[in-house]
Amino acid sequence: MSRVVALSGGIGGAKLALGLARVLAPQDLTVVVNTGDDFNHLGLHISPDVDTTLYTLAGIANPDLGWGRRDETWQFMRTLGELGGPTWFQLGDADLALHVARTQALANGRRMAEVTADLAHRLGVGPRVLPMSDDPVRTRVVTSEGELDFQHYFVARRCEPVVIALRYDGASDAQPAPGLLAALASPQLEAVILCPSNPWLSMAPMLAIPALRRALSACAAPVVAVSPLVGGRAVKGPTGKIMAELGLPVAADQVARYYGDLLDGFVLDERDRVVAPQLGTESLITDTLMRDLADRERLARETLALAARLSRQMAAS
Amino acid sequence: MSRVVALSGGIGGAKLALGLARVLAPQDLTVVVNTGDDFNHLGLHISPDVDTTLYTLAGIANPDLGWGRRDETWQFMRTLGELGGPTWFQLGDADLALHVARTQALANGRRMAEVTADLAHRLGVGPRVLPMSDDPVRTRVVTSEGELDFQHYFVARRCEPVVIALRYDGASDAQPAPGLLAALASPQLEAVILCPSNPWLSMAPMLAIPALRRALSACAAPVVAVSPLVGGRAVKGPTGKIMAELGLPVAADQVARYYGDLLDGFVLDERDRVVAPQLGTESLITDTLMRDLADRERLARETLALAARLSRQMAAS
Repeated sequence: MSRVVALSGGIGGAKLALGLARVLAPQDLTVVVNTGDDFNHLGLHISPDVDTTLYTLAGIANPDLGWGRRDETWQFMRTLGELGGPTWFQLGDADLALHVARTQALANGRRMAEVTADLAHRLGVGPRVLPMSDDPVRTRVVTSEGELDFQHYFVARRCEPVVIALRYDGASDAQPAPGLLAALASPQLEAVILCPSNPWLSMAPMLAIPALRRALSACAAPVVAVSPLVGGRAVKGPTGKIMAELGLPVAADQVARYYGDLLDGFVLDERDRVVAPQLGTESLITDTLMRDLADRERLARETLALAARLSRQMAAS
Repeated sequence: MSRVVALSGGIGGAKLALGLARVLAPQDLTVVVNTGDDFNHLGLHISPDVDTTLYTLAGIANPDLGWGRRDETWQFMRTLGELGGPTWFQLGDADLALHVARTQALANGRRMAEVTADLAHRLGVGPRVLPMSDDPVRTRVVTSEGELDFQHYFVARRCEPVVIALRYDGASDAQPAPGLLAALASPQLEAVILCPSNPWLSMAPMLAIPALRRALSACAAPVVAVSPLVGGRAVKGPTGKIMAELGLPVAADQVARYYGDLLDGFVLDERDRVVAPQLGTESLITDTLMRDLADRERLARETLALAARLSRQMAAS
């Protein structure tokens, strides 16, 4: 059983997942990934956060785009555009192969978790990568311009519409992926890490699955979140914009408050030190900006050290 | 209405179709294409003969492979192989875009003929390209190793199993594509050309559609076939092998005999001159080998000239 379970969305979360993968033995880490962003496009089952996680852990993520693969080519997309097809969601030639392989496997009756495990194996990813559920959960964004599919909001509309509310369709009926509840209940488990992904877009769909949320609440190991804000701003993506639109102060303590009593600890960026007194949980203040591989490893080690400290406190009390 | 209707399969037929396209005004030519080879692969509707015809008429066919596009890249296929996907049917990155565009359009309820017209327009193809039918017809090959899908026989098994019989599933219930019967009944029609494609694999699925065969029989314009054999051998592909396996002498007169009373004329290669007396139809003896564009244009002109001569004879009799 894994010593560490990390819950992650796309880019920011995957960076920390990579740091964890580099400081833990493969069998000691399970990365649970949001599938609320999944959608069907061009007849393909696309799972953006799973893909970003797989590519990042395999060391083949595109460092410039923040999604897709490095050394990618775009012949398919260019030609699809010439043929009048939709080009708002960019798919590289190599990336496309993964979507086709997944879609075929799902069409053949295999489940998302199995298919993800197989792709991870093929890509040489060591740690276990688990989609949050085999069941479909779809994030829907209620905006000033009406309700939008997540990818239409996020990619086609570039997060421009004002968010009024978020829904996670299917979450209340979804079961955690096979093995996930066992991992969270395992006596070998030493830490659960909520990676620095957007809480409302990437982490919330996971927490909206009742059995998964219950298992996190009941988990004997400490649950530690890493703030996605650095200096009161998201490193990338619309976290700050969405917090403001939801009427929240754009500050790291609001993230801790959002996770509420799920948390045993919180990793706060040193530029947000001022809100530390309002966290309402144990905290570590450090540099959370992950510029390079060394940053990712350091933040992973520090986050695990906080969890270890919390474990000792919990054992002593 | 078109002055000329050409029926064609893949590579050999498409060469003559290109010759016709270069000597006729775009509005004067309709190319009717076999869809008996169509199949579903990786969730995509692939129509090999339609694709070869479109690429050839657009001037972007791959001259080395005989299928697919020129200046193609293979990133998708290479990656699919790395992920454990099937690679027996090669799909280039640009080629893939056409299959995805077609599959999406069909999934959206559009018909094969409309979709083909749209793709032809996007690729800048002037003449009308009509799939033989909007209805599915699937060529099945009964072999010494059992019954095979056409593409499994043709590509995966490289035509190696011995052919016992051919079936054209769905043909008896299929209707000719919209506009095709009108084109064949038009008083403006001056010639119907059966291009030099494999009679049993590429032409037979069209002739197996009852209303199409009837329309060809009843057609007032002369029907002229161009022999796919040169010197008693197929230029490319398994025509000779299949004729032998079906118990036929591998000779051009057997092709004319196969088309039977559909034919008003036959274009025979000069290397097959010896069988001319057995043709049982009017003929033109010429060099039918199409090495370059000039050959394609010359053969197109000569074939049209034979049809014009037959028209005058039919008018005089």
